[in-house]
Formats: sequence, C-alpha cells, structure tokens
Amino acid sequence: MTALYSLAQIRAALTQLDPISIMESAFVAYSEGRVVVPPVGEMVFSDPPGEIHIKYGYEIGAERAIVKVVSGFYNNARSGLPTRSGVLLVISQKTGVIEAVLLDEGELTDVRTAAAGAVAARYLAPKTITTIGVLGSGIQARLQVTALAGQVPCRNLIVWSRNGAHAQRYAAQMTELGYSVRIASEPRQVAECAELIITATAACSPLLQGDWIKSGTHITAMGSDTPDKQELHADVLGRADIVVVDSLDHSRTRGEAARAVAAGALMMSRVSELGQVIRQPQLRRQHDAQVSVADLTGVAAQDIALASAILEGLPQRAAAL
Amino acid sequence: MTALYSLAQIRAALTQLDPISIMESAFVAYSEGRVVVPPVGEMVFSDPPGEIHIKYGYEIGAERAIVKVVSGFYNNARSGLPTRSGVLLVISQKTGVIEAVLLDEGELTDVRTAAAGAVAARYLAPKTITTIGVLGSGIQARLQVTALAGQVPCRNLIVWSRNGAHAQRYAAQMTELGYSVRIASEPRQVAECAELIITATAACSPLLQGDWIKSGTHITAMGSDTPDKQELHADVLGRADIVVVDSLDHSRTRGEAARAVAAGALMMSRVSELGQVIRQPQLRRQHDAQVSVADLTGVAAQDIALASAILEGLPQRAAAL
Repeated sequence: MTALYSLAQIRAALTQLDPISIMESAFVAYSEGRVVVPPVGEMVFSDPPGEIHIKYGYEIGAERAIVKVVSGFYNNARSGLPTRSGVLLVISQKTGVIEAVLLDEGELTDVRTAAAGAVAARYLAPKTITTIGVLGSGIQARLQVTALAGQVPCRNLIVWSRNGAHAQRYAAQMTELGYSVRIASEPRQVAECAELIITATAACSPLLQGDWIKSGTHITAMGSDTPDKQELHADVLGRADIVVVDSLDHSRTRGEAARAVAAGALMMSRVSELGQVIRQPQLRRQHDAQVSVADLTGVAAQDIALASAILEGLPQRAAAL
Repeated sequence: MTALYSLAQIRAALTQLDPISIMESAFVAYSEGRVVVPPVGEMVFSDPPGEIHIKYGYEIGAERAIVKVVSGFYNNARSGLPTRSGVLLVISQKTGVIEAVLLDEGELTDVRTAAAGAVAARYLAPKTITTIGVLGSGIQARLQVTALAGQVPCRNLIVWSRNGAHAQRYAAQMTELGYSVRIASEPRQVAECAELIITATAACSPLLQGDWIKSGTHITAMGSDTPDKQELHADVLGRADIVVVDSLDHSRTRGEAARAVAAGALMMSRVSELGQVIRQPQLRRQHDAQVSVADLTGVAAQDIALASAILEGLPQRAAAL
C-alpha cells in the first residue's frame, strides 16, 4: 500500500531535521560514488515556457530509491500560481513497491537547494562578510539567505532583480525577517558591495563579469540548471581561484562550469566536487583574497537523502486511498 | 491541488473506455511524430533482481504530460507480493502543476500493454486461427489473450511456461474464463499448433526458433522490453515476411528487433512501426501464408493516451490530502 503525505506533514517532519547536515552527507556519498544518479529526464515546453525535470537514483545498498518530478513554469506568477510544482516517489529497492508519495509541491527541492548553498558557504565563504549580495528575488533568493543564517552572522543584503517591483517585494520580505536590505540598480553594484554573492535567477545570459568581482568573494550560483541557462560570464569562473560544482557529471552538459569550459575559460581538471571539498580541506580557500565559485545544478543525491530522512520522520500509518 | 485516484476509481473509469481504440490512436499519433517521448529512465537492481522504469512524454499541443513509474521485481512472487508496482503522474503542459496521481499499482501498464497486443493482432493476424499459443503464464499471458476476445473468436489455447506449476495455474484460470487449454511440454509444440503466438515471458535467451514457425503465423512478442531480454531467435524475425515494432526509436536499443539487427538477421529498413501499419494497409499481411512478428517494447505514448482518457472519466472532485 502506497502511503500519501501532504505538504503539511512533510513540513512538520522537516522541523525535526537539519537539512544542511543531511546535504553534507549526501554530497560526500555522491562524490564517493555510493549514489547512483542516472541522467536527468527533461521535458521542455515553449508556450508557455516551462520545464519538467525528473531526477532519480538511489544510494547503493540502501532501502529506497527516489524519483522526483519537479516543474518550473515562470509565467505562472502572472496568474498567481506557484512557479514550481512537484512530487517525490519513494520506492523500495528490494521489492519495487511505491512506498510513499510525498506531495511536497516542489518544496523539498527548495529546501535541499537552499541547504546545498549553505553547505557551499560553510566550506568556501570568506571569514568576514559585511554584505550578502543576491541576484534574483524569487523563492531561492529568500531561502538561500535564510539557510545561511546559522553560520553567517551578516544580516546586510544587497539585492538586484530584473523586475524592480519584485526587488521591492523581496526587500520587504527580508526586512521583515530582520535583514537590512539595499536594492541595487544593476548586478555590478552587487558585486562591488558583497563578499558573498548568491545568484538565483533563471538568466540565459551572464549577469556578472569577472573583472567586477572583488578579491576574496565567494559566489554560489544556483540558478543555472539546464544547458541554456547562465548567470556568470565564463571569465568569472576563469578568474576564480577555486571552482566547485555539486556534480562533475552534470557539469559536462549544464551549469556555469559547462558554459565556462565551452567558452575556453575554464579547464574541468581544476574543478572540484562539493563532496570532495567537504572531505579535503586543501581544496578549500587557503587565504582570504581568493575568489571561489560554487556552481550548483542540483543532484538527485540531495533528493534521495532528504526524502529518506523525511520518510523516517513521518508517521508510519499514513493516509491511503 | 493534486488529485489522488485509487486503483478502484481507476478501474471504474476503465470500464467506460475502449483501451484498444485508445491504443490505436496513440500509435498513430506516435508514428506521425505528434508525441514527444524522451528516452526511458531506468534503475536496475541485482539483489534481488528488479527494475524501475520511468516513461514520460506528451502529445504536442495537448493539455497534459505524463510521467509513469513502474517496477518489476520478479522474485516478489515468492513472498506473495505483486511483481509489478507503479504510479502515474499527470502534469499540466501549461502550468507544470501535478494535476493527478493515479495510484494504479502498475495496472494501467498491464491494460495498455494487452491492448497493444490486440491492436497488433487486429492488423496483422491471419484470418483463421484454430489455436492461440502462449509462452508465459503471468499477468500478460492472461491479459493478452482476453484482450483479443473481441476480435478473435478462437477459444483454444496452448500454453508453455518454464514453471510447470505456473502453467497448471494458468490453465485453470483460462479454463474458468471459457478457454480450452492444453499445456505444452516445450515452446516448439506451441509453434507447431498455433497460428497466433503471444510471447509474454522475461526470457533472456530465445525460446522460439525460425524454422519452427508455421507458414501464416503471427507472433506478438511483448516480454522483451530491456536490452538484455530476448524471446525470439534472431532468425524468427529474419525469416518473417512482416516485422512491426511499436517504436523504431526503442528498437535501436531494446526488444527483439534490436537483437535480430545486432545478430545480422534483420535490416531495420524493412521494419515498420505499428502506427504506420494502422494507417497503411499495404504494410499489413497480403496473403495468409505470410509470417508476421509484432515486437512490442511499450512506449510512453500508450501511457499518455490511456492516462489522459482515464482522467477525463474520473470524478472532478477527487480525494486530496
């Protein structure tokens, strides 16, 4: 019998978990080759523009495999619908039985994506951060910042969004959460002010250029998860001292590193995987003047780890039809 | 809000539908290039052996896309569990919203697979059938035969199964449904008696050889849906007058045609797609002495069509958590 879990139940289970630690373990397991992650499935629509991604896989020898379906339709915002939707299927590796359907509406993806950014910052950000810079004004622009709260004391934000009204709304939201927020008129201003920059847009052409980036800056780029998206000019990665990706495998085809390699600005041989950086201190920042970039495309290993942890925290006797 | 539908609700909706006609339209749409079907996602386990398949896609310009997850773990039978499990997600092409979760436990796959066999028989089987031959004794061995009932008057079966007890059980089931059933001691006997043969096993080495097949026979091979499975010796396809597959694209890597091409016994240039055969009478049997083979691997176009039809027949106000 398949158990069905609502978003409310999932949120309740989440309060008992530390997603950042779960992501750390997930990235280590992934980089150590203990997680099987087949190629991402994808359906791309043009009218209206939207994407459905299918990410799936399993940790070898574990109890369960995961299939996650998540969609992004950015025009939904115009009609007041959420831009993201999703569902997570938890399947026994031993019997193939669909054990649970987590009706998370894409929220677990938001949580694990934000937690991954926090993991990147934990291992790569400079010691002193006076201002956090944000490109974008959507869910991740908010969650990436709040996920950092436990480890980065800075509460000063500078935000840029293509849409001025969205930037205003974002500023209001974050002010309410206790942040002091300035709105930048262009991405360059963000680069000039911030030591930690989060890019969380769906941009298909670069927003930041290499010579704008201050010495000592860390950038987490998490908006680019398909072959056609790009937030950072290739020379941002080309000039960076440290380039880290969540998945070297994904980076062959998608994300900022893929674009920078294609442009001839970066060699994959000097790119590390986040799971390696967690285990090997020599792959991290060696002094405060270094520039680091974490390029996060999202890997099923994250979904597997979070869904498995959630399922253990959920009531055994769940709703069933 | 995602609507959830139980197997009981799905079965009720099915009684109002004609799956064979739905499959006909689906195969035509697929062969005409109106259905986008990305590569099948797959997770394969060895201990115990099992597979999880992810089939997905959409008809261009339609309202919905489908993601189907179905598993097959054959050892489950030993512990009394169903060998198949599954769930179907119905997603809006316009908003990405997960509109419905069909908790079909893999049954819609069974239904559409059996209906596809009936479509193949409708267009390819000889006029006179005195005996229907069946290799295998599982769900499809039963459903493929019952799906034929509306168009093939023959009620004489000859069945072979690797497992004698399973053959006995199958004979009892089919006798109860009004069939006269003989059990064959080897696959060759089936070929010698039957004019319409259904192969519905998970065999990984060929069960039927080309020189066993009687003139005028039609074979529907539906057990082989992965690159390593094979029910027909390459020379069965090599000698056949007509070879039809559900998907030329799938046949590049999986199914009987792929194996026969790899063995040098078959050229893909003389293989037609079922959707073409439905539209073009000249691709069908021209006289009763011809041997035809339909190699069905299963395509997401079938799932899309059946799930869409089901959803239209389901109550608008469904269960939700």
